[in-house]
Amino acid sequence: MTRTPDSAVRSYIDQHRAAFLDELAAWVRIPSVSADPARAGESRRSAEWLADRLRRTGFPVAEVWETESESGAPGLPAVYAEWPSGEPAAPTVLVYGHHDVQPAALADGWATEPFEPVIADGRMSGRGAADDKGQVFFHTLGVRAHLAATGRTAPAVNLKLLIEGEEESGSPNFVDLVRRHADRLACDAVIVSDTGMWAEDTPTVCTGARGLADCQIDLYGPDQDIHSGSFGGAVPNPATEAARLAAALHDDDRRVAVPGFYDGAVELTELDRELFAALPFDEQRWLEVAKSHGTLGEAGYTTLERVWARPTAEVNGIWGGYTGPGGKTIVPSSAHLKLSFRLVAGQDVEHVRSAVRDWVAARLPAGIRHEIVFPGATRPCLTPLDHPALQSMVRSMGRAFGKEILFTREGGSGPAADLQDILGAPVLFLGISVPSDGWHSVNEKIELDLLFKGVETSAYLWGDLAETWTPGEQVR
Amino acid sequence: MTRTPDSAVRSYIDQHRAAFLDELAAWVRIPSVSADPARAGESRRSAEWLADRLRRTGFPVAEVWETESESGAPGLPAVYAEWPSGEPAAPTVLVYGHHDVQPAALADGWATEPFEPVIADGRMSGRGAADDKGQVFFHTLGVRAHLAATGRTAPAVNLKLLIEGEEESGSPNFVDLVRRHADRLACDAVIVSDTGMWAEDTPTVCTGARGLADCQIDLYGPDQDIHSGSFGGAVPNPATEAARLAAALHDDDRRVAVPGFYDGAVELTELDRELFAALPFDEQRWLEVAKSHGTLGEAGYTTLERVWARPTAEVNGIWGGYTGPGGKTIVPSSAHLKLSFRLVAGQDVEHVRSAVRDWVAARLPAGIRHEIVFPGATRPCLTPLDHPALQSMVRSMGRAFGKEILFTREGGSGPAADLQDILGAPVLFLGISVPSDGWHSVNEKIELDLLFKGVETSAYLWGDLAETWTPGEQVR
Repeated sequence: MTRTPDSAVRSYIDQHRAAFLDELAAWVRIPSVSADPARAGESRRSAEWLADRLRRTGFPVAEVWETESESGAPGLPAVYAEWPSGEPAAPTVLVYGHHDVQPAALADGWATEPFEPVIADGRMSGRGAADDKGQVFFHTLGVRAHLAATGRTAPAVNLKLLIEGEEESGSPNFVDLVRRHADRLACDAVIVSDTGMWAEDTPTVCTGARGLADCQIDLYGPDQDIHSGSFGGAVPNPATEAARLAAALHDDDRRVAVPGFYDGAVELTELDRELFAALPFDEQRWLEVAKSHGTLGEAGYTTLERVWARPTAEVNGIWGGYTGPGGKTIVPSSAHLKLSFRLVAGQDVEHVRSAVRDWVAARLPAGIRHEIVFPGATRPCLTPLDHPALQSMVRSMGRAFGKEILFTREGGSGPAADLQDILGAPVLFLGISVPSDGWHSVNEKIELDLLFKGVETSAYLWGDLAETWTPGEQVR
Repeated sequence: MTRTPDSAVRSYIDQHRAAFLDELAAWVRIPSVSADPARAGESRRSAEWLADRLRRTGFPVAEVWETESESGAPGLPAVYAEWPSGEPAAPTVLVYGHHDVQPAALADGWATEPFEPVIADGRMSGRGAADDKGQVFFHTLGVRAHLAATGRTAPAVNLKLLIEGEEESGSPNFVDLVRRHADRLACDAVIVSDTGMWAEDTPTVCTGARGLADCQIDLYGPDQDIHSGSFGGAVPNPATEAARLAAALHDDDRRVAVPGFYDGAVELTELDRELFAALPFDEQRWLEVAKSHGTLGEAGYTTLERVWARPTAEVNGIWGGYTGPGGKTIVPSSAHLKLSFRLVAGQDVEHVRSAVRDWVAARLPAGIRHEIVFPGATRPCLTPLDHPALQSMVRSMGRAFGKEILFTREGGSGPAADLQDILGAPVLFLGISVPSDGWHSVNEKIELDLLFKGVETSAYLWGDLAETWTPGEQVR
C-alpha cells in the first residue's frame, strides 16, 4: 500500500505547530458553556468561529446548523462541514465532536482563569482544551498534513464533520438534528473524537460503549402517611416494597436478576478478555479515581470487564417516607426508585424495558399501585475487532505513537450510539486525552505531545482508510 | 362482696350531670396546645384550673408540678393530686392522663370553633373533649359518686392522679418528671385514662400496647457521587445496600428476618386469639381507616393480631442518591434508612438493638461504611388477663355498660410504659372514647352517653379494686 510519508506529515505539523496552538487557544477563550443560558451568544460565536476556521482549512462546505427542541424552542447551534474526496469509491467518514464546554470559574479552584488558556510545561490549560475543542481541532491540522504529505488537493476519504453545541447539556436536540440531516450526514463510518486513552504511555483505541436504559418507578400504598403503631405490620409499605425491588435487582452473585435482562447480550470472547488483561490495570489506583473503598460486581468478571463489557443495573436514587431529623413512626404513602441499566451489544432496549416492566409488576403485592416511566435510552455500540476501519485506526495511531496500541472500552455512553442508529454506520473512537486531563473538573488541560499525536493520527487515517477499506464489501 | 349500689351511683351522676358538663366545657375552652410556644401560658392556666378543680373535688393534695428538659429549659406543667384512703391495706392506684391538646383552628375545617365547646345531639364537640380532658375529668365526678354511694369520706383506694402537659408533644420531659417524683407516685397499678374502646356498641378494655425501638442507619460508599457509566457495576452502591437491608428485614412470609429479633416474645395464646376474634372486625372498614388498599403482614396471623400482638419491623424512611426530576446516572455516595421495630411483651429493647446491630454489620459488603443510631425506645406493656385489677376493671365497665366487655390492645405505645418501668406497677387502660371521636383531627367530640359511662366505671372501680385485690398477694 502507498502510505502517507510519516516524515512529511511530521515536518508539516512542526511547521504549523505554533499557529495551530494560537488558533486553538483563541477558540478556548470563547466560553461556550451550554448549560448557561446567559452564554448562548458565546455558543453561537464558538460555532461561527469554528465554521470560519474549517472554511480556511479548506472545507468547501462549513455551515452553522440550528437546533430546536420538540416544543420548537431554539437550541444551541452545531457546525457541519464536508470535504468530498472527488474519488467515486472513497469511503465517507463522519467525525463527531462538540464545541460546547462544561461550566468553569476561577473560584472553583482553578490555578488560572479557565477561559484564558496558558501554554506551559508541555500542556495547554483551559476549559475545553481536552473536552472537546482540542480533540476536534486536531483534525484541521491533521487533514492539511494529510494533503501536504500526499500532494492531494482533497482528502482521500469523503470527510464530514458534525460538531454539536449541547453535548455537555445532555445533547437534548441531537437526535432530532441528526434525523433532519440524515441524508447529508450519510457515511460509512462515524469517528467519535471525544474520548481518551488509557494513559499517556499506553495509547489505546476504544472499541465500544455501553448503552443505557433508565427508569423511574413510583410506588403508592396508603393514601397518606399512616401511623405505624396503629397499622404497621398489617398493610403493605411502599418504602419496603421499593427496597425489595431494588434489592431484587441483583442476586447474591450480583448478577442482574431481572428475567430476560441478559437476553442477546454479547459475551466477552477470550480475545476480549486477553486484550483487557493486557492493560496495566492497578486496582488500588482505579479505586482512588472511583473514590470508592472496595470493588463489588458480577461474579466471574474483573473490574474492567464489569464496567466496560457487562450489562449492569444501578440504583441511582431511592426515596420515600420520613427523611428529617429524629424519628417518625409512619407507614409512608409512597416511595420512589430511579434505576439505570447499562447495556452491551446484542441487548435490545425495548426488550429490556419490557423485562423490567414485567418484573416490577410481578413482584409487587396487592395494595401497592405503581407507575413506571422510561425517559430515554441509548443503545450500546461495539466495533468488531476485525473491522477494517478499526484496523486502519490502530495502524494510524501506531504510526503516530510508535507503540503497540491496546484496546479499551467506555462504560458510559454518549451521542455516538444515536449516530450509529440513525445513520446505520459503525462507530469508531479516536481520542488522545488522558484521565489526568480534568474533564468536568478544575484545571482541565491537554498534553501538547498527545495533541500533536492526534493531529498525526488524523493525518495518517484518511489515507489508510481509503487504501484498505471498501465499505460495501464489509458487513457492519 | 359489698358493691357500691349502682342506682345510687347513677342517681348521683344524674344530679351533677349539668354542672359537670359546664366545668368540662370551661376546661376545653383553655387552648392548652403544647406544640405552640405562644400558648405556654394557656398550658399553665389549664394546669392551675385542673389543680383547683381537683381540690374542690376533695383531693387533699393537688399540686402543679414543673417539668424541665435535660438541658434545664422549662417545660409545660403537669398536675399531681392524691387522696389517701385512710385504710392501711388499701391498694394505691395512679391515674394517668394529660391536659394538653393537639393544635386546632376553625380554618382546618372545623364545623365550630375548636375551643368553644358545643353540646348538641348527645355530644360535646371541642379540641380535647375526648383526648384527653373528658377522659381525665370523668374521674372527678366518678370519685364523688363513689363516695356519695358508699357513704365514704375518702376513696376505697389510695387515689393518685398524674396529668401531664406535654403528651401531644411526645412527652419529652415525662420520664425525668416521673423519676424525680417516683416516691410520691409509688403505686400498685397505673390506670391510663387516655385510650378508647372498639366502638360505641362494643365496650372494650385494652390489655396492652406494643413497645418501640427505632433506629437510623447511614451507609457510606464512594466519597462523592460517582458516574455510574464509568464505575457502575464494579463498586458497592450504598443505595443498593440500603435497599438490600430494608428488603432483608422480612422474609417471604413477612416474618422479621433479623436473627434473634423474636427472642422472648410472648406468643398469642388460644384465649388471646379467641378474644380478638370475638370483636366485630370489618376488614374493609379497617382498610378505609388505614387509608390502605390491601393487607399484608406476617403469615399465620390476622390483621388485628398483626397490629396488636406481633412484633413488626417497618421502614419509616429511606433515601439516597438523586431524587429530582429526570435521571442522573450516579452511584450515590450515601444512603439512609429509618427503621422502627414494634415490640411485644417479653422482648428486650437492648437485645433487639444488639440483634439489629449485628445483622446490619454482617450484611454489608466491604467498601460500605455504616453508622447506626437508636434514638429512643419504649417498652411494651401487657396486662395479664387474670390480673385481679384487670378483672375489677372489666366488672366495673360491665356494670356501667350493661354489656359483656371485650378485649383489645393498642398497636402503638405512649408514656404508659415509662410509668410501668419506673414505678414497677402494672398498667391498665380505661378509655371510653370511640374511633369516630376525631383525635388529632377536625371536629373532635366526645359522646355524652359514653362520657358518663366513664364516670360510672370510675365510681365502681375504686370500691371493686379495694374489695377484690390485695396487691402484695399477686405476682405482677
